[in-house]
Amino acid sequence: MVDSFHALAKRRGLYFPANESYGGVAGLYAYGPTGTALKRNVEAAWRDRFVSREGNAEMDAPTIVPEAVFEASGHLDGFDDAIVACPECSARHRADHLVEDATDIEEAEGLDLVTIEDLIASRDVACPACGQRLAGQPVDSFDLMFETAIGPSGDQSGYLRPETAQSTLVEFPRLAEYARNSLPFGVAQVGRGYRNEISPRNAIVRSREFTMAELQQFFDPDGDDPPLDRVADVTVQLLPADRADDPNPDTVAYTVRQAVDDGVVRPAWLAYYLGVTRQWLDRVGVDVDRLRFREHDDAELAHYATACWDAEACVDGEWIELAGLAYRADYDLARHAEHSDADYDLFREYDRPRERERTVLDVGRGALGPRFGNRLPAVVDALEARADRDPAAFEEDTVTVDVESETVDVDTDHLEVRTEAVTDHGERVRPHVVEPAFGVDRVVYAALHHSHAEDVVDGEARTRLALPAAVAPTDVAVLPLRADVADRARRLVDRLRRADFEVAFDDSGSIGRRYRRQDEVGTPYCVTLDKQTPADDAATVRDRDSTAQARVALADLPEALARLRDGEATVAELRRS
Amino acid sequence: MVDSFHALAKRRGLYFPANESYGGVAGLYAYGPTGTALKRNVEAAWRDRFVSREGNAEMDAPTIVPEAVFEASGHLDGFDDAIVACPECSARHRADHLVEDATDIEEAEGLDLVTIEDLIASRDVACPACGQRLAGQPVDSFDLMFETAIGPSGDQSGYLRPETAQSTLVEFPRLAEYARNSLPFGVAQVGRGYRNEISPRNAIVRSREFTMAELQQFFDPDGDDPPLDRVADVTVQLLPADRADDPNPDTVAYTVRQAVDDGVVRPAWLAYYLGVTRQWLDRVGVDVDRLRFREHDDAELAHYATACWDAEACVDGEWIELAGLAYRADYDLARHAEHSDADYDLFREYDRPRERERTVLDVGRGALGPRFGNRLPAVVDALEARADRDPAAFEEDTVTVDVESETVDVDTDHLEVRTEAVTDHGERVRPHVVEPAFGVDRVVYAALHHSHAEDVVDGEARTRLALPAAVAPTDVAVLPLRADVADRARRLVDRLRRADFEVAFDDSGSIGRRYRRQDEVGTPYCVTLDKQTPADDAATVRDRDSTAQARVALADLPEALARLRDGEATVAELRRS
Repeated sequence: MVDSFHALAKRRGLYFPANESYGGVAGLYAYGPTGTALKRNVEAAWRDRFVSREGNAEMDAPTIVPEAVFEASGHLDGFDDAIVACPECSARHRADHLVEDATDIEEAEGLDLVTIEDLIASRDVACPACGQRLAGQPVDSFDLMFETAIGPSGDQSGYLRPETAQSTLVEFPRLAEYARNSLPFGVAQVGRGYRNEISPRNAIVRSREFTMAELQQFFDPDGDDPPLDRVADVTVQLLPADRADDPNPDTVAYTVRQAVDDGVVRPAWLAYYLGVTRQWLDRVGVDVDRLRFREHDDAELAHYATACWDAEACVDGEWIELAGLAYRADYDLARHAEHSDADYDLFREYDRPRERERTVLDVGRGALGPRFGNRLPAVVDALEARADRDPAAFEEDTVTVDVESETVDVDTDHLEVRTEAVTDHGERVRPHVVEPAFGVDRVVYAALHHSHAEDVVDGEARTRLALPAAVAPTDVAVLPLRADVADRARRLVDRLRRADFEVAFDDSGSIGRRYRRQDEVGTPYCVTLDKQTPADDAATVRDRDSTAQARVALADLPEALARLRDGEATVAELRRS
Repeated sequence: MVDSFHALAKRRGLYFPANESYGGVAGLYAYGPTGTALKRNVEAAWRDRFVSREGNAEMDAPTIVPEAVFEASGHLDGFDDAIVACPECSARHRADHLVEDATDIEEAEGLDLVTIEDLIASRDVACPACGQRLAGQPVDSFDLMFETAIGPSGDQSGYLRPETAQSTLVEFPRLAEYARNSLPFGVAQVGRGYRNEISPRNAIVRSREFTMAELQQFFDPDGDDPPLDRVADVTVQLLPADRADDPNPDTVAYTVRQAVDDGVVRPAWLAYYLGVTRQWLDRVGVDVDRLRFREHDDAELAHYATACWDAEACVDGEWIELAGLAYRADYDLARHAEHSDADYDLFREYDRPRERERTVLDVGRGALGPRFGNRLPAVVDALEARADRDPAAFEEDTVTVDVESETVDVDTDHLEVRTEAVTDHGERVRPHVVEPAFGVDRVVYAALHHSHAEDVVDGEARTRLALPAAVAPTDVAVLPLRADVADRARRLVDRLRRADFEVAFDDSGSIGRRYRRQDEVGTPYCVTLDKQTPADDAATVRDRDSTAQARVALADLPEALARLRDGEATVAELRRS
């Protein structure tokens, strides 16, 4: 079923294995004309919803990232999969996937290597390539990042980014400047990610090079609330981590508001983007009746995440991750602050300066120096801390402090505690991050599957891609049926293209055959120029889904098609008008 | 001047060195929010012009390409630059660039390594880093492609593509299928390219990772003509290769039609895209008075090109290549046909089958075999060729042919020449390729420079980015001047975003300061809500370039701004209406 879908995708110009003339390479797929147009439309729809409508920014960073960044982010150590090699045929496999296939465990990715080794032995797992038993074979970590050398000397290591996130997060100091140091703000990237998958599978679903659309939403954990009202009533199907033990867990329906109020999804920014995600997937053709949000348990959580919900679509009975919505808290900014010289805090200026009183301790160093010698700085630190905490103690004759596990008494004659007024102009904040991260290819795949329909029209079976007009590869097909309307058809194509329509032109084959070609690639509207056209200067507009038809004057077509595309009219309504 | 422009670009969120927190890596640049929006708009404008309007297709291939493809294409052998290392400080330099800087030679890329070595010695070229003399140092070839290992075994070599071209061309067999084997057709890609530059320079102009927009136009060299009428009257400034010897060569103005008729630019498809390129660069903000097309001479031509014209823009007195328009003929398809098992010809079916007569020679092998032995096949080949060329010769008693440098007489008793009818259903064609290949980053750079303007408004100097509305990062800025219009401003922002405008919101600082911020990043229109707004429910629209203002009702703003953006009205006209 899956393979026949991939074969269909190849025939229709959706996607196909790249470099097949040379035998191809597993996990590298190319998009054909139809697939590229669809993918571009999905990307544009994502930008519209997650960037423009939210007032967020977009950036575009290199996909080659120097080693230091992934050292700081933890990817050099932690971004790997469990691998096992067959002693017979040398094929290498993802060990956790073998365990998932052989057991009831749905997610084995979080298991440690020894546990996976044990399961392979106890369940007698065999090599999927040759059938050899794998019990006793070592399970290792395999680094998923592609490495390359930068520069002519070859001594600078770089990695192809496995996600866009780090290439955004590492630029936080500058991005904060562009946001004029004002939280909350979001920065998105749409671009390539690379993972040297051990066992690529299912075409564009698990490939080695893919397109991601990620948003890093920066916010003050003690202050900023999301604009929850916009999605408060959106219902999301949730599968919380504590239900995953259930062999057949049911999802629970929550409105976004309830999920926040009941504390099921935290923080509120994460719940907000669950709602936005559900709305957006609906808009690009994913059937939201086959959509759930599954929470990661502690074992599955990535090293950087405090919480994570995967948006999963059911395709052919299998749940496929379309997006991961993670709460990264301040993990990344803290790591980059620690590993680099840059400042990953943000200075938030107060609306007006704030006055406060501060306790100050004046120390007679001349008197104390001889007694404490090079321990003096430590003693002064301890005294200052005490003064801050307990100024009244300095009203006694002596004050006692602990310095380096030793109790020290100091004569208060040499100490003066006083208060002074201080003006604060702002405070330092380390933002937290919520991240909706989409696999664009997987969204395309789910939308294709969910839009695939078969029905019977005029007694003939047809295949139809019922994609929403917003993402359909082609807006309109122009179909001249006779030679004497060819010029009119060409002029119409030019006019429609100037009016920003994506236009297909097809002048070969019977009308039924041409309709079928367009139905198969999801073209919402066909315009047929026929033998009447020279007389009435009009053409027939046909709707892909209902097959309803209406006669429209050629001169009115750009406007009529714009109204159809924007949902302001249906073909049936055009006929009546 | 160049450096101060890069500093300005960083401040405005256009582009900046990536990973600066970790010291950065030469040649890797990131785009900030303003730059990303501009670049996306340039990409969209390119797609509109070179794909949608032309009825071409777009594809999207992986950037990691297996070695076999670049072995076939000649890149493994030929895609390198001349490198020289300093014996003192070990810095590595592009040797041809050092020669260009030290001599009158404008393009040293085509020179061989020995010539470059000699010039470095005779001109006493010094290391730009430390001043050490480089005479006598070896000049080597340095492979510009980034290499990486694919798959868990690490034994499959892949390269990051240095251009999109090969990842399109290698898929020709499938692309031809999608085009239903009908020429001409064009396939574009917009995506990343990678070159491990020896000496990256000038920020996004010569970086190690960049965005390309390339079109491969496939056509029948014996048949298809481009739709030349569309651009026949466009004037292009040409610098043919034979004028380049002139120390101060002038360009010559040609219309596209003249360039074709005079044979200055060949083939006609190349001239066609010169015209389209000139129109398009004008549309995205490149000053076409500072644009020329320079022809490569034989030394400069890439190994795959038969002819090439570079579209060059003058920026700060330097000519920068924005696009290369190459005639690749059938170089690539022939190479892939030779190196792979796939068919890189196209079978063109005739409208109706064609009958023709073919000469057939029947040979009495039984009679001739004993005489010629294993030379018989060669003799038969020679006889068949003669029969095809000169059937009358077989009417004599003997016929004479040359076989392996020996003259042979054959008795015609054993030979019969006859004709038979053959039906041809079509013919095999190997398409030729013309390729307009754009460096998107360089187009962005030239448009930014050419749009940079300084003038005086109300006695105050201002900086302004006079970008065309089609590519400006932001369509409109909404500027509420008082707290009592904040809600109206927010609602207006939401409405404009739903109507597909890119909207900036700025509620801080004086109105003059806010206008300056928007002028600096090229926002064509500002909408100011002021103290009058609560009374008249209207706002002031201001034009970036003329600073003309008009009062427009809030309810009418989406439509008024759409008319401004689409060039259907000016702000001055809004005021009068």
